[in-house]
Amino acid sequence: MELTKTACVLIDIQKESNFGIEGTEEAVKNTKHLIEECRQKGIPVIYTRHINRADGIGLSKDEPLKEDGTPVYYSSNTENIEVFDEIAPKDGEIVIDKYRWSAFYETSLDLLLRNMGVEHIIIGGFVTDGCLMTSVFDAYFRDYQVNLVHDISGASNEGAHMSAMLTMANWVYNLRIYSTEQLVNKLNNKDYKVWKSPRPDSLQFTPETMREKFDQIINFTQEGE
Amino acid sequence: MELTKTACVLIDIQKESNFGIEGTEEAVKNTKHLIEECRQKGIPVIYTRHINRADGIGLSKDEPLKEDGTPVYYSSNTENIEVFDEIAPKDGEIVIDKYRWSAFYETSLDLLLRNMGVEHIIIGGFVTDGCLMTSVFDAYFRDYQVNLVHDISGASNEGAHMSAMLTMANWVYNLRIYSTEQLVNKLNNKDYKVWKSPRPDSLQFTPETMREKFDQIINFTQEGE
Amino acid sequence: MELTKTACVLIDIQKESNFGIEGTEEAVKNTKHLIEECRQKGIPVIYTRHINRADGIGLSKDEPLKEDGTPVYYSSNTENIEVFDEIAPKDGEIVIDKYRWSAFYETSLDLLLRNMGVEHIIIGGFVTDGCLMTSVFDAYFRDYQVNLVHDISGASNEGAHMSAMLTMANWVYNLRIYSTEQLVNKLNNKDYKVWKSPRPDSLQFTPETMREKFDQIINFTQEGE
Amino acid sequence: MELTKTACVLIDIQKESNFGIEGTEEAVKNTKHLIEECRQKGIPVIYTRHINRADGIGLSKDEPLKEDGTPVYYSSNTENIEVFDEIAPKDGEIVIDKYRWSAFYETSLDLLLRNMGVEHIIIGGFVTDGCLMTSVFDAYFRDYQVNLVHDISGASNEGAHMSAMLTMANWVYNLRIYSTEQLVNKLNNKDYKVWKSPRPDSLQFTPETMREKFDQIINFTQEGE
Repeated sequence: MELTKTACVLIDIQKESNFGIEGTEEAVKNTKHLIEECRQKGIPVIYTRHINRADGIGLSKDEPLKEDGTPVYYSSNTENIEVFDEIAPKDGEIVIDKYRWSAFYETSLDLLLRNMGVEHIIIGGFVTDGCLMTSVFDAYFRDYQVNLVHDISGASNEGAHMSAMLTMANWVYNLRIYSTEQLVNKLNNKDYKVWKSPRPDSLQFTPETMREKFDQIINFTQEGE
Repeated sequence: MELTKTACVLIDIQKESNFGIEGTEEAVKNTKHLIEECRQKGIPVIYTRHINRADGIGLSKDEPLKEDGTPVYYSSNTENIEVFDEIAPKDGEIVIDKYRWSAFYETSLDLLLRNMGVEHIIIGGFVTDGCLMTSVFDAYFRDYQVNLVHDISGASNEGAHMSAMLTMANWVYNLRIYSTEQLVNKLNNKDYKVWKSPRPDSLQFTPETMREKFDQIINFTQEGE
Repeated sequence: MELTKTACVLIDIQKESNFGIEGTEEAVKNTKHLIEECRQKGIPVIYTRHINRADGIGLSKDEPLKEDGTPVYYSSNTENIEVFDEIAPKDGEIVIDKYRWSAFYETSLDLLLRNMGVEHIIIGGFVTDGCLMTSVFDAYFRDYQVNLVHDISGASNEGAHMSAMLTMANWVYNLRIYSTEQLVNKLNNKDYKVWKSPRPDSLQFTPETMREKFDQIINFTQEGE
Repeated sequence: MELTKTACVLIDIQKESNFGIEGTEEAVKNTKHLIEECRQKGIPVIYTRHINRADGIGLSKDEPLKEDGTPVYYSSNTENIEVFDEIAPKDGEIVIDKYRWSAFYETSLDLLLRNMGVEHIIIGGFVTDGCLMTSVFDAYFRDYQVNLVHDISGASNEGAHMSAMLTMANWVYNLRIYSTEQLVNKLNNKDYKVWKSPRPDSLQFTPETMREKFDQIINFTQEGE
């Protein structure tokens, strides 16, 4: 991970709370730590925000509406679309607004990353099994090397978070998974731990073995060690 | 599902067997049944094929290679890239070759579907947690109504298949899930069963409840019934 | 042109004046007339703005810079990026910011048009041979029927405007070209004049015949009449 | 132009002759020369082919049809879609089939170029004012440095060829324009001549000055020399 070719992309860490994401507070705290380190190292911090226009234009099909016709989630006329105050973008930092789960779909994210010469992305955010996972796949399709930070990420339920992590681990062949702490260690040239994909589809599972396989990821268990 | 605005998209039901997909034989048998019905009803059948060029150009990052430098999976110089003989494309049917998991990424699939006036797609294939899931999300981003056929789909392991089905059920708001049998019933204006998404993120789960939640899908359990 | 399936897309009619576009004043006056009629008929008015980030991120290659490192044209820290006051977007109207000539490249324009069920676009703006022409081609690639308004459009020089009009007339097979006046007539179900493409590449020209061929367009000369 | 980061992209140099492109024979002869040099230097040669499916699926709107319902131009059931024999792709060379003018629209061209680490493209082909020009703009949007070879390119008429060359010269800021001979000189580290864009919109013209401005390009007149 060459730092001058790296960007940090934060997916939808917004005030919207109707989905009831688990561990939001902890994730925001970790994000704060991560972006301070990134800024110090000159790694650009890029934010994405999911937006549903209050007038209903451009909504995903079957997007739920309130009685007044405005969207239940991420409505553009509410404060829910804002990034959390503690980690708000600084003046001049890039904010990508988007209408679909993936941060790459019909946005300028790829244009900007490519133009900046970015090859590695540090990524995390909400929800693991939705916007984060589809953005990670889209980053991989565009040949970015993906570094996922698991503890700035979250979902509304444990199974969804675990299974999305396992799916990305299985099919994004150049994936590296870090905790905030370990990634910060790496950025500071200290010893660090990382989970890396040893081969395609390496973490096959059943419901019964799912916890154990997921633990391999968050414990950075390297095959063969 | 207006039949004149519907197409059937089969994701990567190819001879490649190195991933060891569970239940391939059954899935191919069901696909055969499904496409015969589609053809009879005038619903276009579109095939996608995953291709890794034998010369290594365009491969996904960290794609595994054999000692001779050719790709382990879906290598263009092998028969593995062919659709299974029993369900081979008929003369004139559309075949989309692709280099990334999603069948929509840098291919002409959307161009063709849109040009044909398609609004609904019937979709299934391999692997549930990779090419199928990313294609389903990309179809949803483009406003197609998605009808997923679970028993023409499969993964290399039970957990991956189940969790990918749950993830799609949670985040593709206009999703309908059928078995081949029930979808064929529907195409023939007979009584049929279907699982439909009642609201965002409706099937939250833990490893311990995952089987039960997945069973709701394949048993077509409608909330409130 | 079914009005409920029509949108009006105004390309880069911004205060930026360093390119010295000919006839800007007249074009803005016509645009004002056009958008008032569109709004009255319920046709959505969509604005695009060309933006070059003042910090230099995302600039087109070899984009000229001032001594202070900010872009000469369309710099995000100047008023030049604003739409002209007389035709400024009303509250709630869609504004698409873009970093490349075509309004469709890595923006949400197609997502929104498609989602609204738009099939016909009314289009015009600056410059005819750059952002307008590339946007018109991109609209055509996506199967929109294109209605070009020549007198809300302009370039820095006569030759560029004429030749771009001829090129679009030759290769956008479903093109219709109007003046503001004639298009407004049409919107009001009055008699109107229009130039329409009779066949591919119908207006072949040399420098010596270019004015004459261009005049056919703006005089709405129908072949065979 | 670093040769290891360069690819040669030939746009639609196909047998289709219904458009009556001027100077086809000469362009093909030059292309033959160019690609032999490219192959010798290890520069990948990539072909694009415009295809209209004989069954009418995916056609551009208002694409002309024959009485039997098949497309007049580039019909997939005719030999017209083949590259000219003299310059036919060698075994293993990349051929991109496409349904819209631009070679980048819903094809894998960008995926492959990007994956190969290409930064510079050598480009030319037919028709200058259609597929070639839209492909050049799309290459520029993706930050490729574009080297246009004017004498492997052509249009159905003189005005179209000239004006498209002028338009690209004005708005593709990193453009270089060569003749085959001069580009081959460059590839062989000999003295060569080139036209390069000195600044945005540098070749403004009227019908009366068009020939003279165009001559500046093909005579490689550098401003200030």
